[in-house]
Amino acid sequence: MPATLQFWFDFASTYSYLSAMRIQQAATMKGVAVEWQPFLLGPIFAEQGWTTSPFKIYPAKGQYMWRDMERLCAARNLPFQRPESFPQNSLKAARLALAVEQGDRRAAFVQAVYSTQFASGHDISDPAVLSDCLAASGSAPDAVQRMSDPKIKADLFEQVARAKALHIFGAPSFIIGNELFWGDDRLDDAVSYASSYFT
Amino acid sequence: MPATLQFWFDFASTYSYLSAMRIQQAATMKGVAVEWQPFLLGPIFAEQGWTTSPFKIYPAKGQYMWRDMERLCAARNLPFQRPESFPQNSLKAARLALAVEQGDRRAAFVQAVYSTQFASGHDISDPAVLSDCLAASGSAPDAVQRMSDPKIKADLFEQVARAKALHIFGAPSFIIGNELFWGDDRLDDAVSYASSYFT
Repeated sequence: MPATLQFWFDFASTYSYLSAMRIQQAATMKGVAVEWQPFLLGPIFAEQGWTTSPFKIYPAKGQYMWRDMERLCAARNLPFQRPESFPQNSLKAARLALAVEQGDRRAAFVQAVYSTQFASGHDISDPAVLSDCLAASGSAPDAVQRMSDPKIKADLFEQVARAKALHIFGAPSFIIGNELFWGDDRLDDAVSYASSYFT
Repeated sequence: MPATLQFWFDFASTYSYLSAMRIQQAATMKGVAVEWQPFLLGPIFAEQGWTTSPFKIYPAKGQYMWRDMERLCAARNLPFQRPESFPQNSLKAARLALAVEQGDRRAAFVQAVYSTQFASGHDISDPAVLSDCLAASGSAPDAVQRMSDPKIKADLFEQVARAKALHIFGAPSFIIGNELFWGDDRLDDAVSYASSYFT
């Protein structure tokens, strides 16, 4: 079995943007394949009694997060623009990420969605924005209609159930076997672990 | 003015243990001095509506934190033992850390308290344990009586007010000028920033 790492992300998550833009390269360098696993944090946060992002509920933490993102993106030469609306509704984008086949095409779509949101400041709940992301990442732009596909809706529901069963409580999260790594700060540890776990 | 970094910690904080045990070396290597700033997270958490550690309030996050600590301590060859009681009452230890003069002696006391709690599993709310930490770190063991000194109590109250004014919301936190860095994961960034900020 090839070394594989599951990358669980919510499109509303700022720190998942950091990981989405570098995970492919970090994993490839260690011979690890990436499974792109979109899910929704909303239902998981709701079980903790949160009705929005903890960065809204706890303003000091939110203020810090934006400054931290600015510093990290600057250090990585990664474009960053704080979107006007936060957190954005990531439901349609998550469904479409599931609709795009696993692998390079899904990776490209995911990166396009994160970039349009956090590098260009666009609203990813807008189907026109998502259609552009599909086109830019090599999928048919009219695949945007699959955001209403009952099969895809059910698939995303199942993804959230899987995330809960894996004890995922935030994003980005990385899963290798029974090990959970949380946060962009653990991406390198997760890749190293995946590399050794499968050899 | 020499390059200086403020290290804000609560003795109940697991991730502060990680930083306390390595900050002196990390800072010295970059010509940065460390100011050891004990405070209490309790009053800050209380303002957010939390009556205990978020690792107790959110069990999935708590379960993850212990596993994360195990992995990080193993990777660093740092002894780690999960104490029976968590979070421990850090009030007396914080007062005593303020009572010990700033500098090497305070650093040694702080490391002794973290080690007895997270390497040996002892209860740091026990004055006998704290007395041993004082002795082991070159202070008079009967200085433990200063935990009841009204001047020291007032000093700690003031420390918490300073932490709030600095927008500190967790521990460990590192302050250089107006920049806040949160978490052991940001220790190296904070030291590098301090090194460049003062030159």
